[in-house]
Amino acid sequence: MEWYLITPVAGLASLVLAVYLHRYVSKQDSGTEKMREIAQSIKEGAKAYLRRQNMTLAAFALIMATVLGVLFGLTEGVFHGVSAVVAYLFGSLCTAIAAYVGMMAAVEANVKTANAARTGLKKSFSVAFYGGAIMGMSIVGLSLLGISLLFFIYYNVLGWTAAAASNVVLAFSFGASALALFAKAGGGIYTKTADISADLVGKVELGIPEDDPRNPAVIADNVGDNVGDVAGMGADLIDSYIAAVIGAMIIGSAPLLGGGIYTTLPLMIAAVGLFASIIGAIFAQVSIKASPGAALNRGLFSTCFLFIIFLFLITRFSGLGEDKWLGVFLPTVAGLAAGMVIGLTTDYFTSIDRSPAQRIAGASVSGAAINILTGFSYGIISIVPSIIGISAATLAAWYLADMFGIYPFYGIATAALGMLSIVGMIISTDAYGPVSDNAKGIAEQAGLGEEVVEITDKLDAAGNTSKAITKGFAIGAAALTVLTLFGAYTELAGISSLNLMQPKIVVGVFVGAMMPPLLSALLILSVGRNGERMIAEIRRQFKEIPGLMEGKAKPDYARCVDIATKGAIKELMLPCVLAIIVPLVTMVVLGVEALAGFLAGSIVTGIIFALMMANSGGAWDNAKKYIEAGAHGGKGSEAHKAAVAGDTVGDPFKDTAGPSLNTMITVMSLVASVFVPLILVLLA
Amino acid sequence: MEWYLITPVAGLASLVLAVYLHRYVSKQDSGTEKMREIAQSIKEGAKAYLRRQNMTLAAFALIMATVLGVLFGLTEGVFHGVSAVVAYLFGSLCTAIAAYVGMMAAVEANVKTANAARTGLKKSFSVAFYGGAIMGMSIVGLSLLGISLLFFIYYNVLGWTAAAASNVVLAFSFGASALALFAKAGGGIYTKTADISADLVGKVELGIPEDDPRNPAVIADNVGDNVGDVAGMGADLIDSYIAAVIGAMIIGSAPLLGGGIYTTLPLMIAAVGLFASIIGAIFAQVSIKASPGAALNRGLFSTCFLFIIFLFLITRFSGLGEDKWLGVFLPTVAGLAAGMVIGLTTDYFTSIDRSPAQRIAGASVSGAAINILTGFSYGIISIVPSIIGISAATLAAWYLADMFGIYPFYGIATAALGMLSIVGMIISTDAYGPVSDNAKGIAEQAGLGEEVVEITDKLDAAGNTSKAITKGFAIGAAALTVLTLFGAYTELAGISSLNLMQPKIVVGVFVGAMMPPLLSALLILSVGRNGERMIAEIRRQFKEIPGLMEGKAKPDYARCVDIATKGAIKELMLPCVLAIIVPLVTMVVLGVEALAGFLAGSIVTGIIFALMMANSGGAWDNAKKYIEAGAHGGKGSEAHKAAVAGDTVGDPFKDTAGPSLNTMITVMSLVASVFVPLILVLLA
Repeated sequence: MEWYLITPVAGLASLVLAVYLHRYVSKQDSGTEKMREIAQSIKEGAKAYLRRQNMTLAAFALIMATVLGVLFGLTEGVFHGVSAVVAYLFGSLCTAIAAYVGMMAAVEANVKTANAARTGLKKSFSVAFYGGAIMGMSIVGLSLLGISLLFFIYYNVLGWTAAAASNVVLAFSFGASALALFAKAGGGIYTKTADISADLVGKVELGIPEDDPRNPAVIADNVGDNVGDVAGMGADLIDSYIAAVIGAMIIGSAPLLGGGIYTTLPLMIAAVGLFASIIGAIFAQVSIKASPGAALNRGLFSTCFLFIIFLFLITRFSGLGEDKWLGVFLPTVAGLAAGMVIGLTTDYFTSIDRSPAQRIAGASVSGAAINILTGFSYGIISIVPSIIGISAATLAAWYLADMFGIYPFYGIATAALGMLSIVGMIISTDAYGPVSDNAKGIAEQAGLGEEVVEITDKLDAAGNTSKAITKGFAIGAAALTVLTLFGAYTELAGISSLNLMQPKIVVGVFVGAMMPPLLSALLILSVGRNGERMIAEIRRQFKEIPGLMEGKAKPDYARCVDIATKGAIKELMLPCVLAIIVPLVTMVVLGVEALAGFLAGSIVTGIIFALMMANSGGAWDNAKKYIEAGAHGGKGSEAHKAAVAGDTVGDPFKDTAGPSLNTMITVMSLVASVFVPLILVLLA
Repeated sequence: MEWYLITPVAGLASLVLAVYLHRYVSKQDSGTEKMREIAQSIKEGAKAYLRRQNMTLAAFALIMATVLGVLFGLTEGVFHGVSAVVAYLFGSLCTAIAAYVGMMAAVEANVKTANAARTGLKKSFSVAFYGGAIMGMSIVGLSLLGISLLFFIYYNVLGWTAAAASNVVLAFSFGASALALFAKAGGGIYTKTADISADLVGKVELGIPEDDPRNPAVIADNVGDNVGDVAGMGADLIDSYIAAVIGAMIIGSAPLLGGGIYTTLPLMIAAVGLFASIIGAIFAQVSIKASPGAALNRGLFSTCFLFIIFLFLITRFSGLGEDKWLGVFLPTVAGLAAGMVIGLTTDYFTSIDRSPAQRIAGASVSGAAINILTGFSYGIISIVPSIIGISAATLAAWYLADMFGIYPFYGIATAALGMLSIVGMIISTDAYGPVSDNAKGIAEQAGLGEEVVEITDKLDAAGNTSKAITKGFAIGAAALTVLTLFGAYTELAGISSLNLMQPKIVVGVFVGAMMPPLLSALLILSVGRNGERMIAEIRRQFKEIPGLMEGKAKPDYARCVDIATKGAIKELMLPCVLAIIVPLVTMVVLGVEALAGFLAGSIVTGIIFALMMANSGGAWDNAKKYIEAGAHGGKGSEAHKAAVAGDTVGDPFKDTAGPSLNTMITVMSLVASVFVPLILVLLA
């Protein structure tokens, strides 16, 4: 029997859990008429967005599939071509379905959490956490099921070599990354368009509270929290996860390692990680007492602990041999440890209880500019421990693998897997955040009273630490994943040495390094442009709908949802196209080695900008909350106004550009790995 | 006769011109009693700052000289040790003296320009331009004289090999970079501390105009313009210039090229560039008619034109041979052309007449946050043409050199020289900016009336385009210079290939790439911290000095000058020490190749952050000016307030962190090139 067949079993188990959780959430009550009404609007808005996103995605996927099919067909025959197309579309489809189901479940959980909060903390925590875990379990389960089934068919049924099978399965990863790109960039633009516009007109111009039902953008804002944070973060992590698994398989099937156990081991590591996540998720819910934050942390740490035990078992007894198993086990653990370090650092630099956010709050007293300069600076300083963590993990993985006779790049690949294997638990914890955040919003809009809002507040606050940790995890994991893909690319392009003293490679590095900041800038400008359209519409409604300000008339929520949707899809095109085209142009103009330089450059600045933007954004957010909690004059003070400006700058940093970069650099690496070997064959 | 002896001649000629210009400026009248009083305060403040800076610099230089002397002494004997110490201290001394003289002349020219403006545009332009040119001519002249004399002594008099002589002369460059580091980082912190504090309390809190004599920080602000912009920019460019010349000499004396003409040619190229600058500077003043901007541009372009002719003559007839001269001529011209492209791009992205600044102004209508997001994004986008320009110059220089049988890294080195050879003219044009800016300030403070202020306004505006171009030049030149130094380092450390697929090198790249953003953040936080002290002092004076607000009492200017001075010197320590220590730690922990990776990483993000910060800062500044000129409600509108916030964010970006990065990456490269060969010998 092939041991890696535990992988589809893990995938199935995860899906079963998702179905069970979904039934649990569905059974809960949605509360008052008003709550149902709000929930219905959010649901419709989310559906409208997803429908448009998925239609565009489908068109995009078909074009890419055609290109891929033709290239594969020309180089490796029609059968391979068809197989690649199937894998590609299957990758897009699996992740798109899981994202759709997960997001709809989260939307449902919003209102049900709010309602459960009327009966107490414990019940509402369960609903919120399960609502988030549906996304986590379904997207990881479906992905792992998809990868392992495809590999099984090509490798075991059709009898291809491990290398050929892994290569075609890479198209699955490429398909998943297309969804991630759209979900992350599009969702990111959407959510911040709605958020900033709603705030600027509502809070700043008219002085009405956040989440006020009179604000025409309030539903779009709620929808945005779901499409941006739930679907977006899920897509981001799953994209790295799939790439890490398949990248490791490709390196494992390279001539130096020779396939066999090395190809299937990544699948098994992913499987045991998923089992650990399933148990951890159940444990988190069971262990809730007074503090939801502690429950989430217990869930996370127990998952890590279980994973290490399982990892020991499969590396020790999978047939690697007594002399070599440590060469896989140790790098994987190093990766997991680095992930924790990065996560905890992120927490330090963004937490409301720590000195950076509080100093930014203090700087707000001198005005918006000083607040922004301070937050920006701390955002930059926060990259230092993460870069050191990633560097340490890279060196440790490389030399530990080498010490036990494992090909060093395989060590890097398993380190990335180590970080990402518990992604089921990570996404679950992460999706809990926006669910409880939205529950709070609904509780406010539906006027459920102080006491209920306070409970949802507690739920929301608990999500913050875990959210910071998981965000750090996502960036660290993306870093090691793209290093893995970099290894896979050099393997596939036949590059054995990459001399930084060659001008084409230097120029490749320069151009690659330019891409992440450029894409960030384009995404931020998109939010600005889209926001302008939205602001004009909100102002129009307040002017033209009589009685709106007095609460006697209803705003046209749907119109705002529509503007945000259309704008987001339109605006994501340029950055996405650049992420695909520029690597290929670099390769054509300057050669395959320059493209490797390009990837290296993009990884370096990609990580720096992603960390800087995510952390400064998080710190600005919490600096504002710190002032709102009463410091430096509290709400309404000049310091608060300055902090709001900082938070607004941070919004597209942390929720649009920053997280999109992970996906962008993954996509650029995948473009290189998927297309270049084919182009090389065609040119030969 | 050695042809390179035209170099000390050029240096002397430049110094003679500087003396002549200084006599011209000195002869001018300083105007009314009030003007003299203001000028005296600025002069005293500038002296106080320079005294403290130079004392700290002296201590720093003595420590470094001791380290250098011991290392050189241990590895190459006492005589070499003493020679290196002499070269190092001579480098610090030459640049420090020139910076002192140049800055004092600029301070003198401030008030005399203001006074000359009472008689008309033409005269005042001459005074301002000559006042700036004193800095340009004296610092370039003295540097070139110093380098060529040292080389003459070691090479011709003592009969060392070209390689040994160049190596010791590198200590001159290292000494100059110490001054640059202090002048740039310290001056940058000083000027923005004063500027932001004066604005925040004066303009924002109390609503009194800019440059109002009641503001206790107004003299510190004026001093800051001189120490930050005149001395700082001069030091920045001279630092790159010296490094480019000596870096090219080192590569030229490497075994592959074998010294001789290849070692001395960089000196000759620098010499003809200086001759061209001298003629261009005279031409600029002679050709002034109605528009000072046109005169500056004519000066700049005629310098370029003359330089190319001179360059042709010396490369064609210097003994390189008919087959090879194009391999030096063409890369040098390519460098100059790339410098122009970068400069013009900078102008596009920052000019008040172009779409980026105007769009940022438009975004100000939606508040400070949107203004900042838009400016930040355009700042990032502005790096694209520059990166492409640098890339094109790198490739062109490499392959053009190679095509004609010249060692390719020598081509890169001469391209850097091509950009920097006309630095005499560049610094002159650049220093004109703050001189005319300050003349305007003095005209306002001394109440010289609308008409005079208008003339100084015109002078000031003319400086803006040239200033943008020269800033772009400085960054582009720094990029090619550090590539040259990268080449010199690999040469000196004996590295012939640098494989990016080795983990230590990857980690080196990561750590190096982290440094420029980290140093930027530290410098920005320094400005914030120092600004807080200053703001407290300004508030205290307004509270405790009776009649100050009514204009009946005089503020204590000296106290503010003192706070800015002490703070700037104190705050520059950490970033400077990191720039020296981290490369050495990297080398010790990870090896010489990792340090090469470190340098490569620092070059990449150094250029990106330097361009991004300089250009976004410039664009914010002009967006504010565009609104002040009447757009979007003009002065006092909400849009204006937002634009002021953006400008305040941009201040430390463009005047502290951005320009310091050039120097920081040069210093890191020099640390590597100077120390590593010695450490390697010691370890061997």
